[in-house]
Amino acid sequence: MKMKETFIMSAVAYVKNERNEKKDDFWGRTKTTICLADDLPTSAFDGISAFSHLEIIFHFHKANPEKVNKGSRHPRNNKNWPKMGVFAQRNKSRPNLIGTTIVKLLKHDGRELLVEGLDAINGTPILDIKPIFKEFLPNSPILQADWSVELMKDYFR
Amino acid sequence: MKMKETFIMSAVAYVKNERNEKKDDFWGRTKTTICLADDLPTSAFDGISAFSHLEIIFHFHKANPEKVNKGSRHPRNNKNWPKMGVFAQRNKSRPNLIGTTIVKLLKHDGRELLVEGLDAINGTPILDIKPIFKEFLPNSPILQADWSVELMKDYFR
Repeated sequence: MKMKETFIMSAVAYVKNERNEKKDDFWGRTKTTICLADDLPTSAFDGISAFSHLEIIFHFHKANPEKVNKGSRHPRNNKNWPKMGVFAQRNKSRPNLIGTTIVKLLKHDGRELLVEGLDAINGTPILDIKPIFKEFLPNSPILQADWSVELMKDYFR
Repeated sequence: MKMKETFIMSAVAYVKNERNEKKDDFWGRTKTTICLADDLPTSAFDGISAFSHLEIIFHFHKANPEKVNKGSRHPRNNKNWPKMGVFAQRNKSRPNLIGTTIVKLLKHDGRELLVEGLDAINGTPILDIKPIFKEFLPNSPILQADWSVELMKDYFR
């Protein structure tokens, strides 16, 4: 049997904010400081304030990898919503435990970035940070499942 | 000295397309089949066709981790463009070698997804797939560095 190839990652930065609990909603106004990891040079952030928005790729470090459902389930276990495969949802219980969110960059100061709208709790390890180029955003209308609109009602409020 | 924490990932799917070389431009019309990895159930894709767009998180498997510049450099080594930190660029030579791109979902058929606009070559390991919810897209104007607009001119053509 062929061994499955693995990729080893480590944090490039960490989340510092006042959200210490896993809660589902109200992330829109959360302000977070992103602190560069000690082994990266300050110049890793050079020029970043030319961009208004960043994509933050992070690790759901409080999710239990043993509990990851790789098949389908009801989003938020709400039986009013249809069962959906893990790749038709964005929740944290997923293979590789990766989260991605676009945030607004408020300030760059040396080894720190101040951002708004990051849905990650205090201490979360960040795996990558990318500037948003408008050319990478969808250029055709977004269609999405009805349950996802309902689920998002208060998420970024 | 504290050992740095690491995270071990593996592919959830693989890229199948006709792009076998690392080329910078003309990804817009590239059609790619995303094939679910053998150890994941078919139900991982259940309901996914309710979404028009997906975010693909992948591993730049042909990039050389030894050559990653963690500081700043000229994008595409073009000296007409300012030196920028690794997190102010989207190129593949970056810590953790993660790429993320939003694609259009054309078709879901069992263990395969047909997508358009994925800038990843044949054989690329995919680490995660997420549906695009419009609530996760920026809701304020995008500002970006001039060089990035120039760089993107033919990228998704």
